[in-house]
Amino acid sequence: MKCIFCKIVKKELPCSKVYEDKDFLALMDIKPINKGHVLVIPKKHSELISEMNKTDISKMMVVAEKISSAIRKSRIRCRGINFFLADGRTAGQEVLHVHLHVIPRFLNDGFGFKFPDNYGDKPSKKELERLAEKIKRGLD
Amino acid sequence: MKCIFCKIVKKELPCSKVYEDKDFLALMDIKPINKGHVLVIPKKHSELISEMNKTDISKMMVVAEKISSAIRKSRIRCRGINFFLADGRTAGQEVLHVHLHVIPRFLNDGFGFKFPDNYGDKPSKKELERLAEKIKRGLD
Repeated sequence: MKCIFCKIVKKELPCSKVYEDKDFLALMDIKPINKGHVLVIPKKHSELISEMNKTDISKMMVVAEKISSAIRKSRIRCRGINFFLADGRTAGQEVLHVHLHVIPRFLNDGFGFKFPDNYGDKPSKKELERLAEKIKRGLD
Repeated sequence: MKCIFCKIVKKELPCSKVYEDKDFLALMDIKPINKGHVLVIPKKHSELISEMNKTDISKMMVVAEKISSAIRKSRIRCRGINFFLADGRTAGQEVLHVHLHVIPRFLNDGFGFKFPDNYGDKPSKKELERLAEKIKRGLD
């Protein structure tokens, strides 16, 4: 069993823990984007969010919001929070065990997006409707 | 009432709708980062996630995962998905009504992060424990 997050869950590797319950663990990211960057991870191993059960998917956001509120109340004194999840390697997922980033934001902290070259081009209503139809067909 | 998302929810403004239930609406972002970029919004107006009730916070991620699975199954043919939420102006929130971005990812799509200058510096275990303690004090 090689998953680093599973090893942390099983206490075979240490972490700086912020929160734990029977299904979730929240820990300090060891390579933080900003001061106070926390990862929320389900204890049960799933590579992708679609492999999680619905209860855990629900609970993940509740745990993340709880951490976010705690960060906002804390002496870290952030001005905002980003929630970020990369689902799949192409989306930037490095550890292949679902993890939701909770990232405190500060004024002029240097964190932000690089956008695709065509960002800002507004697709036509017709194009958006066509894409919406494609997605709707995938809904159960 | 000036909130653009509330106007969309009330059908005073149009959108390209992907999904709707009694509490949530999912629509195509009119200024997409990538093809198939969807926003999941709670119908009830909340500026910040901390103002939402716990049921809606749970449900938001379930709806987002449902959309994500539908995008993955669709002919959009993405390779991954990013989930992103900006909580507060300093975090990049532009419309002050909670919205969760579901962003399809493609190989070499040009989307990514700009990191703070000190990104990659690993804080000491002591520093991480100190931050964890600060956050834990903010937990209920």
